[in-house]
Amino acid sequence: MNKLPNIFQSYKPYIEKELKEIIGKKTLPFYNMLRYHMGWVDEDGNEIESSGGKYLRATLCLLACQALSGNYQKALPLAAAIELVHNFSLVHDDIQDGDLQRRHKPTVWSVWGKPQAINAGSAMRVMATLSILKLEKFGILYKKQIAAINILDSNCLKMIEGQYLDIDYETREHVSLGQYLDMIKKKTAALIQASIQMGAVINIGGKSLEEFKNLGLNIGLAFQIKDDVLGIWGNDKKTGKPKGNDIKKKKKSFPIVFCLENSNKKIRKIFLNTYRKKKIKDGDVKSVLELLDRVEAKKYSDEMALKYYKKALDNIEKLPIDAASKGHFEDIARFLVLREF
Amino acid sequence: MNKLPNIFQSYKPYIEKELKEIIGKKTLPFYNMLRYHMGWVDEDGNEIESSGGKYLRATLCLLACQALSGNYQKALPLAAAIELVHNFSLVHDDIQDGDLQRRHKPTVWSVWGKPQAINAGSAMRVMATLSILKLEKFGILYKKQIAAINILDSNCLKMIEGQYLDIDYETREHVSLGQYLDMIKKKTAALIQASIQMGAVINIGGKSLEEFKNLGLNIGLAFQIKDDVLGIWGNDKKTGKPKGNDIKKKKKSFPIVFCLENSNKKIRKIFLNTYRKKKIKDGDVKSVLELLDRVEAKKYSDEMALKYYKKALDNIEKLPIDAASKGHFEDIARFLVLREF
Repeated sequence: MNKLPNIFQSYKPYIEKELKEIIGKKTLPFYNMLRYHMGWVDEDGNEIESSGGKYLRATLCLLACQALSGNYQKALPLAAAIELVHNFSLVHDDIQDGDLQRRHKPTVWSVWGKPQAINAGSAMRVMATLSILKLEKFGILYKKQIAAINILDSNCLKMIEGQYLDIDYETREHVSLGQYLDMIKKKTAALIQASIQMGAVINIGGKSLEEFKNLGLNIGLAFQIKDDVLGIWGNDKKTGKPKGNDIKKKKKSFPIVFCLENSNKKIRKIFLNTYRKKKIKDGDVKSVLELLDRVEAKKYSDEMALKYYKKALDNIEKLPIDAASKGHFEDIARFLVLREF
Repeated sequence: MNKLPNIFQSYKPYIEKELKEIIGKKTLPFYNMLRYHMGWVDEDGNEIESSGGKYLRATLCLLACQALSGNYQKALPLAAAIELVHNFSLVHDDIQDGDLQRRHKPTVWSVWGKPQAINAGSAMRVMATLSILKLEKFGILYKKQIAAINILDSNCLKMIEGQYLDIDYETREHVSLGQYLDMIKKKTAALIQASIQMGAVINIGGKSLEEFKNLGLNIGLAFQIKDDVLGIWGNDKKTGKPKGNDIKKKKKSFPIVFCLENSNKKIRKIFLNTYRKKKIKDGDVKSVLELLDRVEAKKYSDEMALKYYKKALDNIEKLPIDAASKGHFEDIARFLVLREF
């Protein structure tokens, strides 16, 4: 299965409208960088047909709210906030990794330079909190606004810690599977957990959030492991990223960590010698791919993603929501482990 | 006058204690970058005698709270928040400007690299909001927590816009005095305004904040113009920055903008030719200094700083606080325009 579940399409225009209310109307040329990154304008600020992302995190947030209250609208400021935080991380991530392309287009830093791209990312991070304050117009209690801010910011801090570990692991010789899981729990799962919890917390008390949090964790882990698979074996026309990209970036992604843990001394040595090179060439990528094949790293990675997908299904089953809403969560979880983009 | 007013020393240990509660105890090695930047540990994470800054913004925040309620303690989470935001901006600023030294030591990025320094700065920004949520333990209403977050984040966004303009101006041929003032209102004054307003807002309603806001603006402008003077003529042993640093960075700081506005075509041309060079050498700095002398740029800059200082005194006079508190604000304002560091 490779088709985006309908729920994404049904929320997308509302998410985009909310985001455009926040960053669409600002007049300072600075905000063109943000609009460009979101896929709404070209490098000169001229409007283009929107080529934004899937809005996975915003969709999860709205769905959690709708499932609990029958109404997603009041969670729109939260959905926008979570996308702003996600995009803050992408803009900075592209600087940190030196990536030239995202979504088939030059990255913000490669157009405007790193100093200004740092500002663009940071602005999105700040605008996220300001978006949450718009909950007031829906009559959401201050206490719940504070609860949402707490969820967003504590998980955002985890995300930054995860980003630190991800970069740190690039130059470490050994990364265990446990260390890898700790890293992606922070780098990826934390913000996905925040998305679901924020949509829930404005409807229910903090203590009832546990199952939503667990669901976010397992969806997040499945999502990242699948992302790691796509980062090595993905079709670059679909993913928008060059093939073997993660190998060139010396990422200790799941297939790599698995391969290192399941290879003999000789193969580990070949591997590490390649990763020690200053610049990884196409030939090096090819030999790393061969080593990965030898231990069936792709098959095992897919299985791991499926394992967390199944855990997510168990979490969904236990949620205090109706069958139709459960169906939507299941569709999203299934899409995330089977997707090719 | 060049001595730090006593009020700084009396608050400093409490500000530092509050900040250490937030970033002092975290075990992930990541946080060593933050502690290093704050001047508490060396590059290896070993504790050293604290060499932190003046905590100007935190001091203004605590003073505003104390002046209105006779108690500064409840504003400590806000004071810590504002310092975290300020230091987030410093860590990123050093990356953006490529500065190698801050407070007589290597900058975070020059020790850990730019990718990790971006993470360090962003973490401080997020921890600032989390600090505000600690107001709850002082029984501060959720509504007031939200008001404080709103003040901090809207002004932080202005600060980032100002940082964008500051970098943008480096490559612009002409920057008017009006454009310069717009830039420093955002880059510097906004966060100083936020400091004073946050300390006030937990005690009084939002509508009574106007005079505190005006005071922040005028203190902020005076502070930045004096900072510009120190950035060109300051004693590097005292400021911790190399002499003529702002000229080497091609900053369109106040003395430069003043000089360009008050020079004839010929001198403007010499000036701009120097600023067009890829790298500004010591000889270039010397000739820029001569051009600045010719129009008495230092004298006029000092006068401008004094102008805003006097406006600040008028604001202080109108504040609904006792004479002793007014005296403290006056001492701070005076120090800021007369300081040599």
